[in-house]
Amino acid sequence: MDRARALRAAAALECIHAYSLIHDDLPAMDDDDLRRGKPTVHKAFDEATAILAGDALQTRAFEILADAATHEDPFVRCRLVARLAEASGAAGMVGGQMIDLAAESADSPLDIGAITRLQRMKTGALIAASCALGAILGHAGPDAARALEGYAHDLGLAFQIRDDILDVEGDAAETGKAVRKDAEAGKATFVSILGLDGAKERAQMLAAQATRHLAPFGDGADALALAAKFSISRRS
Amino acid sequence: MDRARALRAAAALECIHAYSLIHDDLPAMDDDDLRRGKPTVHKAFDEATAILAGDALQTRAFEILADAATHEDPFVRCRLVARLAEASGAAGMVGGQMIDLAAESADSPLDIGAITRLQRMKTGALIAASCALGAILGHAGPDAARALEGYAHDLGLAFQIRDDILDVEGDAAETGKAVRKDAEAGKATFVSILGLDGAKERAQMLAAQATRHLAPFGDGADALALAAKFSISRRS
Repeated sequence: MDRARALRAAAALECIHAYSLIHDDLPAMDDDDLRRGKPTVHKAFDEATAILAGDALQTRAFEILADAATHEDPFVRCRLVARLAEASGAAGMVGGQMIDLAAESADSPLDIGAITRLQRMKTGALIAASCALGAILGHAGPDAARALEGYAHDLGLAFQIRDDILDVEGDAAETGKAVRKDAEAGKATFVSILGLDGAKERAQMLAAQATRHLAPFGDGADALALAAKFSISRRS
Repeated sequence: MDRARALRAAAALECIHAYSLIHDDLPAMDDDDLRRGKPTVHKAFDEATAILAGDALQTRAFEILADAATHEDPFVRCRLVARLAEASGAAGMVGGQMIDLAAESADSPLDIGAITRLQRMKTGALIAASCALGAILGHAGPDAARALEGYAHDLGLAFQIRDDILDVEGDAAETGKAVRKDAEAGKATFVSILGLDGAKERAQMLAAQATRHLAPFGDGADALALAAKFSISRRS
């Protein structure tokens, strides 16, 4: 696959990811002052700027994918647009965030099944889309596409469990964002339900499972195997 | 042109339009409690819901356009996505809104040239896109596309001038939103610069000019001529 094309698809994904972080950090949402060790957009500028910057970044994502520079076949471009929209809209990332906010004011904390479903939408959908966009651009057959889907699913969950672990074990300087927020909010997380050791065990199991999905690709998927390893060892 | 296709393109536009209103009404933006005579989304629900509803609506717009039901030719669908993204992003609607917010805290009010440019981005870009999407779907030739562009440009400006007039002359019950906001904020508008009579004259001139662009289409553009008439006579 052409490297420039892959980078354009990656840039579109990063536009969606960045917009979601900017909006999630807003006072009306998670109310965070720090992100990647720097002031969040509404802190560095103001709330209106953060809302509009997020809005414009989302638009840019679809603009990039629809552009002929991303792929010469418009059918492929439409598939990229549709797949990213599916992952980031009400049935994916934004829907997951909405359920997460609703859970905060619910009478009882979520159980493990509900948290897993929620995280599958909130963070898993975009990770799955990252793999799917690559599969679309690389004209992957049904078997390869299914293998990548399985990988993405396990990786997404492992990544999220690590997030919950870092919220308990990490420090703000290293993670670049506020920590101990979940416990303070009395929020159900993988750690609050499985315990710290149980969560670590589950994340490792999932990362190993993710890697097994990559077997058919041989060396070609080394970077993805590394990403799975990183997802459970990362400190930020 | 197939009516169902036109309606899908219109629905995508309305998703963008609705999302922009929901976000513009937020406390950090225009801080409006009333829209179309009903509580704004953050009033009826809460701010987080309004932010996420707007985000999901924007996604939905591009999802609708990329779907094969909108047009069987993916090249046409990509053009629709690209054109709507161009109109709604940083170079169009969102950029215009950002300049508008920046103008509020500027040392001196905007002059007529600056307001015209700003409104061309903030409200004109989406009106222009409405016409352009129709032209793309209807496979309009370059002459027809140019005529529609000219129509959209004049209509957009007439529409915005009418908005400024309604902010002075209208009442909240009829317009369905708060009025007298511009004057209270000391904001430069077409009315503050041209005067009420001058603004009305300008709006009429623009609506007439918009209609003249439609001449090549004969009766086929009657609905568009009506829209131009409506843009300067509307009470809400």
